[in-house]
Amino acid sequence: MPLLVVGTLAYDTIETVYARRAEVLGGSATYFAIGASRFAPVSLVGVVGEDFKPGDLELLKRCGVDTRGVEVAKGRTFRWAGRYEGDWNKRVTLETQLNVLADFDPKVPDAQRAARYLFLANASPEVQLKALLQVEAPAFTMIDTMNLWIEHARDALYAVLRKVDAIVLNDEEARMLTGEKNLIKAAAAVLGMGPRYVVLKKGEHGAFIMGGDLHFAIPAYPVENVVDPTGAGDSFAGGFMGYLAAQKRHDPQALRKAMLYGTITASFCVQAFSVEALTPLTRTQIDERYDELLQIVTV
Amino acid sequence: MPLLVVGTLAYDTIETVYARRAEVLGGSATYFAIGASRFAPVSLVGVVGEDFKPGDLELLKRCGVDTRGVEVAKGRTFRWAGRYEGDWNKRVTLETQLNVLADFDPKVPDAQRAARYLFLANASPEVQLKALLQVEAPAFTMIDTMNLWIEHARDALYAVLRKVDAIVLNDEEARMLTGEKNLIKAAAAVLGMGPRYVVLKKGEHGAFIMGGDLHFAIPAYPVENVVDPTGAGDSFAGGFMGYLAAQKRHDPQALRKAMLYGTITASFCVQAFSVEALTPLTRTQIDERYDELLQIVTV
Repeated sequence: MPLLVVGTLAYDTIETVYARRAEVLGGSATYFAIGASRFAPVSLVGVVGEDFKPGDLELLKRCGVDTRGVEVAKGRTFRWAGRYEGDWNKRVTLETQLNVLADFDPKVPDAQRAARYLFLANASPEVQLKALLQVEAPAFTMIDTMNLWIEHARDALYAVLRKVDAIVLNDEEARMLTGEKNLIKAAAAVLGMGPRYVVLKKGEHGAFIMGGDLHFAIPAYPVENVVDPTGAGDSFAGGFMGYLAAQKRHDPQALRKAMLYGTITASFCVQAFSVEALTPLTRTQIDERYDELLQIVTV
Repeated sequence: MPLLVVGTLAYDTIETVYARRAEVLGGSATYFAIGASRFAPVSLVGVVGEDFKPGDLELLKRCGVDTRGVEVAKGRTFRWAGRYEGDWNKRVTLETQLNVLADFDPKVPDAQRAARYLFLANASPEVQLKALLQVEAPAFTMIDTMNLWIEHARDALYAVLRKVDAIVLNDEEARMLTGEKNLIKAAAAVLGMGPRYVVLKKGEHGAFIMGGDLHFAIPAYPVENVVDPTGAGDSFAGGFMGYLAAQKRHDPQALRKAMLYGTITASFCVQAFSVEALTPLTRTQIDERYDELLQIVTV
């Protein structure tokens, strides 16, 4: 398997200004894996409870995700409930039930330890480090994180940052991690913490990547009707890493294109609740939208 | 003269988190003209009071601006005072003294009525319309506006919008004018009001242009040290229109490049108070930064 993700599987309850959905399939690794699976075979390492629906595991498998690393633990699956305000960028967490995630000890199956591309989705830095150390010689490793770990596990996060090739952050996280308000300065400060590249996402305002000689920025794909932004970041990472894994390349030219593929994958994700827009998605549809975005950004 | 701007000349008093400057040269037409003058000869139509410093008129002339259309009226020059909060996007107007601007009746000199490229900088739609009707056969006309006119002179603004080729707006103005929160929808709604193109500026998040088959978006040039954002929008328009006037073209390909030149001109403007960063600017420096931005946006 060229691509491996370690992260969460969840049941989400989501409220937007327009609708509400209870107990739908979610989780960072879920969004990432289904997004990435449009590009390359992907393995998923995570944990679910005994209540995890067999149909959801089947769904992942049907998408081409290798789920041998999904452990079924005693207890209930991780739950997250959140609400989006009128402005999609404002998310309020209503409830978090860690459940089986509380004792998550990632175990990468032997068959997957040779993964070349590795994404450590949002999890505690300790869990991320444990997973990282089980992968033998990844060519390119990217991590995600969140405000919780920046606030409460900063040293552990620093330790992981010294060992990975890239980190993906949103604007708020980048400011929190570095104390820099200006995002270019924030990105430069993150690079000083170890990783070779930083991918900084700004929601509807696009994203940029910085590192070494590379500085590349793109606007978001113009989605007129956002239904649910949950998973946008993880599906961005899925498209990004999926493309790299498929190309077996992570040079600056490949990274530029990966930024577009990440943007496009996320643009589909937000057009429906849960993974509903991602599961039926074909590579042809992705490439059509890629060409559209290419038109929008080409001088 | 290929390019004409009608707008304000002012003395500004500006407070930022870091510094304060009193009674410095400002005004929409001032910023536009000096920005545009790096690309093409430009004429300025506006009004100043008897207190306008001869040195400031000389400065405009030295920049290559034709100031024959600058009327000196009885009274004081227009004054504006404002403060920027920590976030540069938040501007508070502390004082506005219209002074000679209150009775501004634009008179385009005969020699300038053949202008091919026309920018109607922020002014009341009535003033904009009066100026527009004096220009014989402009090839490309763009207007700017502001919340004041959107709120209090909407019908007059609609009338002008039906007669121009393009409008440049910031995100807040676009939302106010259309009632659409989503900026793509807002831009589409503005196009429904008449102009062929809408240029939508999003400050540090870049800008996009929409109209006909054209949809082109770019990030802002990454300025690390913003000193004073005053005039950013007008110098953007100056670089944009200056480039078009110099090329004698306004086809989609030229408009794409004009978006970059506008971005670059604005990026210099904000690096100093008043027009201090614009007056010494050379076309070579602009082109160097253009190449840098091109690198950042090229896939």
